[in-house]
Amino acid sequence: MDPKLVKADHFSVVGLHLDGSTSNAFGSSVNRITVSQLPGLNMLGLSTVHVNYARGGVVPPHIHPRATEILVVLEGNLRVGFVTSNADENRLITKDLREGDVFVFPVGHVHFQQNVGRGNVSVIAFLSSSNPGVITVANAVFGSNPSIANDILARAFQVDKTVIDQFQLHF
Amino acid sequence: MDPKLVKADHFSVVGLHLDGSTSNAFGSSVNRITVSQLPGLNMLGLSTVHVNYARGGVVPPHIHPRATEILVVLEGNLRVGFVTSNADENRLITKDLREGDVFVFPVGHVHFQQNVGRGNVSVIAFLSSSNPGVITVANAVFGSNPSIANDILARAFQVDKTVIDQFQLHF
Amino acid sequence: MDPKLVKADHFSVVGLHLDGSTSNAFGSSVNRITVSQLPGLNMLGLSTVHVNYARGGVVPPHIHPRATEILVVLEGNLRVGFVTSNADENRLITKDLREGDVFVFPVGHVHFQQNVGRGNVSVIAFLSSSNPGVITVANAVFGSNPSIANDILARAFQVDKTVIDQFQLHF
Amino acid sequence: MDPKLVKADHFSVVGLHLDGSTSNAFGSSVNRITVSQLPGLNMLGLSTVHVNYARGGVVPPHIHPRATEILVVLEGNLRVGFVTSNADENRLITKDLREGDVFVFPVGHVHFQQNVGRGNVSVIAFLSSSNPGVITVANAVFGSNPSIANDILARAFQVDKTVIDQFQLHF
Amino acid sequence: MDPKLVKADHFSVVGLHLDGSTSNAFGSSVNRITVSQLPGLNMLGLSTVHVNYARGGVVPPHIHPRATEILVVLEGNLRVGFVTSNADENRLITKDLREGDVFVFPVGHVHFQQNVGRGNVSVIAFLSSSNPGVITVANAVFGSNPSIANDILARAFQVDKTVIDQFQLHF
Amino acid sequence: MDPKLVKADHFSVVGLHLDGSTSNAFGSSVNRITVSQLPGLNMLGLSTVHVNYARGGVVPPHIHPRATEILVVLEGNLRVGFVTSNADENRLITKDLREGDVFVFPVGHVHFQQNVGRGNVSVIAFLSSSNPGVITVANAVFGSNPSIANDILARAFQVDKTVIDQFQLHF
Repeated sequence: MDPKLVKADHFSVVGLHLDGSTSNAFGSSVNRITVSQLPGLNMLGLSTVHVNYARGGVVPPHIHPRATEILVVLEGNLRVGFVTSNADENRLITKDLREGDVFVFPVGHVHFQQNVGRGNVSVIAFLSSSNPGVITVANAVFGSNPSIANDILARAFQVDKTVIDQFQLHF
Repeated sequence: MDPKLVKADHFSVVGLHLDGSTSNAFGSSVNRITVSQLPGLNMLGLSTVHVNYARGGVVPPHIHPRATEILVVLEGNLRVGFVTSNADENRLITKDLREGDVFVFPVGHVHFQQNVGRGNVSVIAFLSSSNPGVITVANAVFGSNPSIANDILARAFQVDKTVIDQFQLHF
Repeated sequence: MDPKLVKADHFSVVGLHLDGSTSNAFGSSVNRITVSQLPGLNMLGLSTVHVNYARGGVVPPHIHPRATEILVVLEGNLRVGFVTSNADENRLITKDLREGDVFVFPVGHVHFQQNVGRGNVSVIAFLSSSNPGVITVANAVFGSNPSIANDILARAFQVDKTVIDQFQLHF
Repeated sequence: MDPKLVKADHFSVVGLHLDGSTSNAFGSSVNRITVSQLPGLNMLGLSTVHVNYARGGVVPPHIHPRATEILVVLEGNLRVGFVTSNADENRLITKDLREGDVFVFPVGHVHFQQNVGRGNVSVIAFLSSSNPGVITVANAVFGSNPSIANDILARAFQVDKTVIDQFQLHF
Repeated sequence: MDPKLVKADHFSVVGLHLDGSTSNAFGSSVNRITVSQLPGLNMLGLSTVHVNYARGGVVPPHIHPRATEILVVLEGNLRVGFVTSNADENRLITKDLREGDVFVFPVGHVHFQQNVGRGNVSVIAFLSSSNPGVITVANAVFGSNPSIANDILARAFQVDKTVIDQFQLHF
Repeated sequence: MDPKLVKADHFSVVGLHLDGSTSNAFGSSVNRITVSQLPGLNMLGLSTVHVNYARGGVVPPHIHPRATEILVVLEGNLRVGFVTSNADENRLITKDLREGDVFVFPVGHVHFQQNVGRGNVSVIAFLSSSNPGVITVANAVFGSNPSIANDILARAFQVDKTVIDQFQLHF
């Protein structure tokens, strides 16, 4: 095989319009582009991800503990949002994006996306770490293994323990 | 005033057993030790915090988007915990600490504390940023301003919209 | 004006298919997306750029002294390339990209792009510095102000001084 | 064994009131808390140390070449100090601390502690490197192996060579 | 062998007036001082280089993609220069140096040196990376393997393809 | 004035064989080369220093709390040394250097130089910080303002308080 092509492949990713299945609870398909597909990222302290969203599909509220994320819409209509910190009054910063629009999610902040158009949505995103981490809030708070004691969560969320139990059922 | 003492004060904090009131919904009192009280921190890219917990008091699940935290118990019995990321299966890492015990909470991870003893708890913690940020999960997810649409949250938490509404009522 | 929208605008750029004029010697139009258009970049140590290429248009060989660049093709067919260092035998790493393809140019390396399709090309790129710098090789070597002495260049490029003079005429 | 507990142990240290023997020339006992006792420090670029001081006990003037140190008194009365650089006129910055007090020693500066109370002193300190290094001034200047020539030291300290010899005898 | 000497050798390089042959096309001899000769550099993120220039000898225009360079003339008369970026109008910053003079070349900028005296020139330089990289402009642009297509270069340098061909002949 | 020359001066220092007076207690003359003389250092996080040593002259044991130092001998015969940390057994690493020799002093370690030749010594050194700091050990330990209590120093150096008093007399 031509070594020149091999080398070029170290610095490129081809065909991001992947047809990952979106037939799941969230209606979205997340394909990480790791150093395996894009070895040129190796020295850069960053990683990328391609996401497909079926109509109405979401990526639920989550956190990247070690990376800021920059997202570019390649196709479709996507609602994005994140929530600021306590000192900034937990403001919801949200926007409806179209093809070619860009959005930034600050490191360690809760954020989400939802397909609000009539067709598929395809995006590419860059994260500022080769090991950004993903923490889905629902899983961390109500679905941890073992569970967080329901009296702590009841006090934290200011609801009855029975309501907490209802949430924990799904995990 | 003696300039020597002024200078020493730049590098010290006195009397961390502050009597902050814990008569609130969470039963805890958080006193940040900023560069105002400890100017010597100015060049260090870190900050500290002192916390008092009444009997049963909690610091609810929260995130520091820009800092790892190290906590030392100065007095009392404290349950602490954090939840690992999705890739680490959302494991709950928890421990009951006593005076002189130390615990580490990794940057950007959901964590909490609860007084599980019979008396007051007093702790000091160090955070690896002069601007660590605090995001209380309940506030960010169910109490943002404006609210995150309840259909996104219902899909994210896999519950009915009416259950989400119940949570959002408290903010 | 709605303060929420103002805030969202801090984290987004809308409509990257800008119609910058490509009626120039290179047949390309480079629009930097600075902190003015995307203030959310402010804390990130990076910047972005949108480029349009007319048919046959090029961005000539250049260097970013302080940034690695990641490029995503939003539309069209683009040939990209960079040359490795002396120790890596000055290999030309080149690839023809289509919509949705990604390529990485390492910091401080000579690189270029050329529209090799039949229509317009539109790309977005991210650079790993808020002040990446641009050094067009032709300008730096043959068009500096004042000129580099032609005997140095003749020795460096192993050609006659008269050939060097021919190059320097264009600046 | 319960894997959950094993994991929690990665992020905690229990029982810092260690009874290290202080029956030595300095009357103090230094117990480093390394990555072996607190593996969660592994990713943090820091380390910790617990120190016991008998009545009158000292930690003699020393330097950490690669770390700033933050000290918290857990029990007793401790005099601490460091000396500023030449440009800051070699000022002695000193303070008498009690339980719950905090002090900061800047990286690479000569500092010391002395128990000035009637009982034991117990402290915990954090250093901003996983490999901070310790250089005891007396050992480095008068006790190196081999010795620094006594004419250099005599000129440096502006005393007779015989006085230098007296110091070097103890090593 | 005396282990003390071995250890001192870890932190020193002796005899930089190396007699590297300058009988080549450029009339210069470049000797990198790597971690093999100066192991004490190991932890420092930098490297050094010694260069001899015969009368009239040059180091042709080149770039270090990952390092700023500081050069000290140990012997002779050396003309040095670099070219600023496009935003700084591609200014040629040049100076004639003598023994004991110092010059700084910013990271990623095109720079060169030429012996303009009557005798040999000897210099030592420090680079701010243990892996600075060297890209000789002539090699990267006209001598890459395979060649950059001559129509791109013709458009980039605004000359005829036949002139480009002339340059590419020498590689 | 020619703006080109002004600009070149931003990146150069001329004539390091300065005739600083060495008629002082140490027989040496230290001339810092700051950003005022070499503005091109501004973005580099480093600084330089030129030192002249009369016959027998010394730079007494000192520490740079924030910088590693690399020294090049431009003229003469210089003995240099530093002492390793406690964990490395306080080894004295020493070497006699001649013109063109290079030596490295690790950050935060006690080091010194002495002219051991028959003529003047001239050196240039680079430090890896724009604000490296200088702490002369004798001044910090025996000449601080106010003094460190002599009972602490007596215990630290394992000598009589009267010997400490003798040292402190000179400041």
